[in-house]
Amino acid sequence: MTGKLTVVGLGPGNAGQLTPEALAAVDAADAIFGYGPYLDRIPARPGQLRTASDNKQELQRAAQALESAAAGANVAVVSGGDPGVFAMAAAVCEAIEKGPAAWRDLEMSVLPGISAMLAVAARVGAPLGHDFCAISLSDNLKPWPTIEKRLEAAAGCGFVIAIYNPVSRARPWQLDRAFEALRNHLPASTPVVFGRAVGRVDERMAIVALIDANATQADMSTCIIVGSAQTRVIPRAGKSSLVYTPRSMPGAST
Amino acid sequence: MTGKLTVVGLGPGNAGQLTPEALAAVDAADAIFGYGPYLDRIPARPGQLRTASDNKQELQRAAQALESAAAGANVAVVSGGDPGVFAMAAAVCEAIEKGPAAWRDLEMSVLPGISAMLAVAARVGAPLGHDFCAISLSDNLKPWPTIEKRLEAAAGCGFVIAIYNPVSRARPWQLDRAFEALRNHLPASTPVVFGRAVGRVDERMAIVALIDANATQADMSTCIIVGSAQTRVIPRAGKSSLVYTPRSMPGAST
Repeated sequence: MTGKLTVVGLGPGNAGQLTPEALAAVDAADAIFGYGPYLDRIPARPGQLRTASDNKQELQRAAQALESAAAGANVAVVSGGDPGVFAMAAAVCEAIEKGPAAWRDLEMSVLPGISAMLAVAARVGAPLGHDFCAISLSDNLKPWPTIEKRLEAAAGCGFVIAIYNPVSRARPWQLDRAFEALRNHLPASTPVVFGRAVGRVDERMAIVALIDANATQADMSTCIIVGSAQTRVIPRAGKSSLVYTPRSMPGAST
Repeated sequence: MTGKLTVVGLGPGNAGQLTPEALAAVDAADAIFGYGPYLDRIPARPGQLRTASDNKQELQRAAQALESAAAGANVAVVSGGDPGVFAMAAAVCEAIEKGPAAWRDLEMSVLPGISAMLAVAARVGAPLGHDFCAISLSDNLKPWPTIEKRLEAAAGCGFVIAIYNPVSRARPWQLDRAFEALRNHLPASTPVVFGRAVGRVDERMAIVALIDANATQADMSTCIIVGSAQTRVIPRAGKSSLVYTPRSMPGAST
C-alpha cells in the first residue's frame, strides 16, 4: 500500500501558531478531509481534493479519509487546535480499529497542534501552571452525570479545569449546571477565563469571578478555564489582568 | 517603559514543531533567559545576550528577566514544550505579583508551544482523546499526599492522566508509588505510554501495561500517559501499536 494518512493539528487559527510540519503536511496532501471551517483556513492548491463535512460526522469522515489513503492517496485529516484533544485523531483510531484489517497497514501519523486551552491560557498569563484537567462538556458522547462527577472531583482535589465544547444549540443548559456544580467546591471569587476564537480576528477574552460566570458568556468557539482555589489575578493599570496558578502550593517540601 | 518580556514555548525540540511566532520572538530578542539545555536549542545570534540558569532557579530567572525588560531590553524567557504547563509563564507571573509595582506596567506576553503530552500522544495515536488531566509528580512544589490524592481521584473518575516530571535524582521513589496508587483504581492491562525526548534525535517510546510499568522506564525527559479503563491498544503487524481513548463512552445519549 502506498497511500498514507496524516492527522494534522491546525492550532488556534493564525499562521503564527501553525507548526511548520503541519503546514508542510497539508501542502503535500493530495486530499484533505475536515470540518468545513477548518478547511477554509487552508489556502487552496490546484489539484488538491477537499472534502468538507459537518462537525458531527467525525467517524464517517475518518472512514472516508482512510479509504482514500488505502486507495493510494496522500491524505490529510485536519482538526483545529490539537487533533488529539477531543478531535479527529481518536476518530481515525476508532475507524482503524473497527474497519478492514488493511487499514492497520496504512502509514498513519498524527501531528500535534496548539490546543485551545494552551492558547487561551497564554493570552491571560498562566492559569494552567499547576495540575489541571481538560473536560469536554458534550453529553452527546458521555452521560451528563459522568461529566458532573468529573467536574466535582476535579474541583474538589485542586485541579484547574479547562472546559471544551461548553455550549451548542443542542446543549444550552449544561454549562450553567457545570458552573453550579463547581460553585459547591470553589470560592465565589475563583477566576474563570472565557477565551473565544483565541488567536483569530474575532477573539474575545473575558475574566470573571465564578459567582458571575454564566453560559451567555460562551459559544461553540469558546474554551473556558476555571481556576482552582490557588489561582490568582494580578490587576494591572491600563492593561488586562494576569491570571496564573502558582507552581507551588502551601505545604510543599521546599 | 520601552522594554518587553515574552515567555516563549519552544515545543518538544524539533524545528518542525516550533511555531513561527515563537521563532520570531526568540530571533527578535536582545536577551534570552532560560534553562541551559533549552537555550542550546536556539541558534546563536551576534549581539544577543544569553543567560542560562539551572532548572530549580525559575523564580530568580523570572526576576532577572523582568529586571532586564524593565531596563529597556526586548527579553525572551524560553521554556521547552508549552511555557504555561509546569513551566516559566507561572514563574514570571509570580515574580510580577511579588516584585516592584513597575513590573506590572511592562508589556508581557506568553507564546504557547506544543506541550510534551500532546507530542507524546500524537506519536502513539490519541490517548488524550477523552477527558484527561496533567499532573506534575514533583513534590518539591506540593505535598506528596496531595499528588497521590489527585492521581487516585483522576483515575477513579475516568480521566486519562499525563504525568510530568515523573522522576529525578532527588525524587527516585515517587513514580513507583504513583503506579501503585493507580493500580488500585485501574485494570492491570491499562496502557501506559512512556515518551522520552519525543521529537528529538534520542526519542524513545514504549507502551506497556500498567501492571508492568515501573520507574526504571522513565527519566527527567520522559512524559508518561496513563490510560483510563476505556483506553485501547490496536496492534499492527510490523508497525508500532496505536493507543487511543474513544471520544464516546457507554451510556452516552447518542
